[in-house]
Amino acid sequence: MTLQTGADLRELRDRKPLVHQITNYVVMNETANATLALGALPVMAHAMQEVEEMASVAGALVLNIGTLSEHWIEAMLSAATAANEAGAPIVLDPVGAGATTLRTETAKRILDHAEIAVVRGNAAEIATLAGRAAEIRGVESIGVEGSAQELAQGAARALGTVAAVTGPIDHVSDGERVIAVSNGDELLSTVTGTGCMSTAVTGCFLAVRPDSPLEAAAEALVAFGVAGEDAAVGAPGPGTFHVQLYDALYNLDPETIDGRARSSEAARDSQ
Amino acid sequence: MTLQTGADLRELRDRKPLVHQITNYVVMNETANATLALGALPVMAHAMQEVEEMASVAGALVLNIGTLSEHWIEAMLSAATAANEAGAPIVLDPVGAGATTLRTETAKRILDHAEIAVVRGNAAEIATLAGRAAEIRGVESIGVEGSAQELAQGAARALGTVAAVTGPIDHVSDGERVIAVSNGDELLSTVTGTGCMSTAVTGCFLAVRPDSPLEAAAEALVAFGVAGEDAAVGAPGPGTFHVQLYDALYNLDPETIDGRARSSEAARDSQ
Amino acid sequence: MTLQTGADLRELRDRKPLVHQITNYVVMNETANATLALGALPVMAHAMQEVEEMASVAGALVLNIGTLSEHWIEAMLSAATAANEAGAPIVLDPVGAGATTLRTETAKRILDHAEIAVVRGNAAEIATLAGRAAEIRGVESIGVEGSAQELAQGAARALGTVAAVTGPIDHVSDGERVIAVSNGDELLSTVTGTGCMSTAVTGCFLAVRPDSPLEAAAEALVAFGVAGEDAAVGAPGPGTFHVQLYDALYNLDPETIDGRARSSEAARDSQ
Repeated sequence: MTLQTGADLRELRDRKPLVHQITNYVVMNETANATLALGALPVMAHAMQEVEEMASVAGALVLNIGTLSEHWIEAMLSAATAANEAGAPIVLDPVGAGATTLRTETAKRILDHAEIAVVRGNAAEIATLAGRAAEIRGVESIGVEGSAQELAQGAARALGTVAAVTGPIDHVSDGERVIAVSNGDELLSTVTGTGCMSTAVTGCFLAVRPDSPLEAAAEALVAFGVAGEDAAVGAPGPGTFHVQLYDALYNLDPETIDGRARSSEAARDSQ
Repeated sequence: MTLQTGADLRELRDRKPLVHQITNYVVMNETANATLALGALPVMAHAMQEVEEMASVAGALVLNIGTLSEHWIEAMLSAATAANEAGAPIVLDPVGAGATTLRTETAKRILDHAEIAVVRGNAAEIATLAGRAAEIRGVESIGVEGSAQELAQGAARALGTVAAVTGPIDHVSDGERVIAVSNGDELLSTVTGTGCMSTAVTGCFLAVRPDSPLEAAAEALVAFGVAGEDAAVGAPGPGTFHVQLYDALYNLDPETIDGRARSSEAARDSQ
Repeated sequence: MTLQTGADLRELRDRKPLVHQITNYVVMNETANATLALGALPVMAHAMQEVEEMASVAGALVLNIGTLSEHWIEAMLSAATAANEAGAPIVLDPVGAGATTLRTETAKRILDHAEIAVVRGNAAEIATLAGRAAEIRGVESIGVEGSAQELAQGAARALGTVAAVTGPIDHVSDGERVIAVSNGDELLSTVTGTGCMSTAVTGCFLAVRPDSPLEAAAEALVAFGVAGEDAAVGAPGPGTFHVQLYDALYNLDPETIDGRARSSEAARDSQ
């Protein structure tokens, strides 16, 4: 396996890439702060008049459909085109795909419209996009058919992107290889927007490794998971955990993070 | 009195109802996190193309007019119709009613348009909607005529809903009965959006007790108030208190909460 | 020098002025909470149908262009007119001016349209508006020509406002006098929206000293900087620092703050 989370984290902090995010109202502050705490520079911009200009100078583009409306969809499509033209990788977070037709269709529309490097979602969201049966309640995955490993691999093939399926164990696949990451903590599911934060962190690593989206996505989940583990220490509940998550992202140690990674690669073409 | 906060909290955590919230930009993250910490599932969606679909599968709908614009008003009205048709109870938070004509008129428009189970606001907001004299500065109640108990009862009658008037002592009425709840802490007034959070928590309890809006609203204020008391322990200011509020909601104990409730019922038709 | 931060803070807490804010989605909760923690009353409202009404009763108006769209620009212009007519001072935060044409042009349009008391931004933002060479990455100032002191003075002259240029050392100028403020902590740059918060705090002080925008802006930066110093004590990273910043604003002591101010006045017409 080729994960080099520590080295890429060091480079990220040296280069401080600009990560342009068009994301939902609920988590804007949180994903901006996670980006900043990790060591990159976030910028949030959604007006049609400026998204192309911003996306074209960014190191990566994060698209998150958590609170859609028509103007925002148009802005995401324009920004995606500009990012593709500039060679900046895009990560898509299909928040709530499967919960409403608008969300499912919009996620598909973005995938059809532009080259997306990574799609990061929960099992139900990713399964929905891959045309599989899934149950979602609001934005929470309730259940899907098949194993998470097989889902990640199949979705990557169906969508032509890297698929990062997060859950108790995360699975990242490019359609051939599948990397499992089991870092993290249960408290992550008690704070809204932690999935969105992991997508933003994926954008940060993509900015550093634009040509290796599989590794970038897996490293992001290692880094975010390790931060989650650190944040859980002594946290009596989601409030304190949430605060300590930013402290932990800020204090992630490139020297030790590779030794703390709980990642493994499944056999190729295991299905 | 028929409050059973502990039992309903236990059921809420077992069932994890979906609580659809169309709320203001300032507090979206906060009300989602309060909902999640308590044990329910929040979902935020406001696009006309999806609000009916989302509201029709939710256990309750929360409408909050804190940062209005035209599209959002239309979305609230559509979601309210869908929630009514699906039998999902609605709680309305008339943030800033009385401060501007738009807010006052929009709150009234929602009340006229749909069946609202509970209106939760401060004294000035509720008084404004009930056609009484009130003074509000921004979104802060400065003063109203009459006692809070009488205001709650009169407003419930005038509006045909349960009225939950929060303040140093909360008063909840269905027009006949009035329940006073004196749980809480002064620090709640130093954090923006704690009123909005109490409305979201009201939505959570309504999802569990849709046929008893008076009890649901009172139990929500007991639960939120007890959490506020726990959050205040050792908090040197609003930042720490805010964080500890999520911890406290998460750690609310169904076994002990009824013993901690400071609620009492006023004589019926006391006016 | 005529700074009287302690006395003005005391007056602010006595009077609790209403500070109307039309600001970006990323920091709405944060600037509202900073305003409330300091002791003033925030209100967020952006709908065309209510901004004039709200601005006309406010003690100050805060305009922040961090996440623009067309309706919001129109609302800012209307609110600015209403604030001018009501005699309420306006502070403008030109977030990201220089990063996109939309932001640069919108900031200039607001400056042309209304009488702005204070422009508060980082060096690149202020330099862009003053027609000077500047480099900005997203919303982070990378570099500008000349000294910060000279930039503040020149920008104030060019723009006809008080210019507050924040950075490791802040410089505030009315075009003649230049006040340097070196309170603060490095952790402020690790949390998104701390610049926006300092603008909101500037609005609070402007509401108390509407006729002395130079002093109001400098006092705001002293107060915010001292709070930043207090918040940094024992903070292992940006999460805890952010929380403690609200505690610190809440606990700012009018008795001791003037003794803690690290401010000095440069010679007039030093350029």
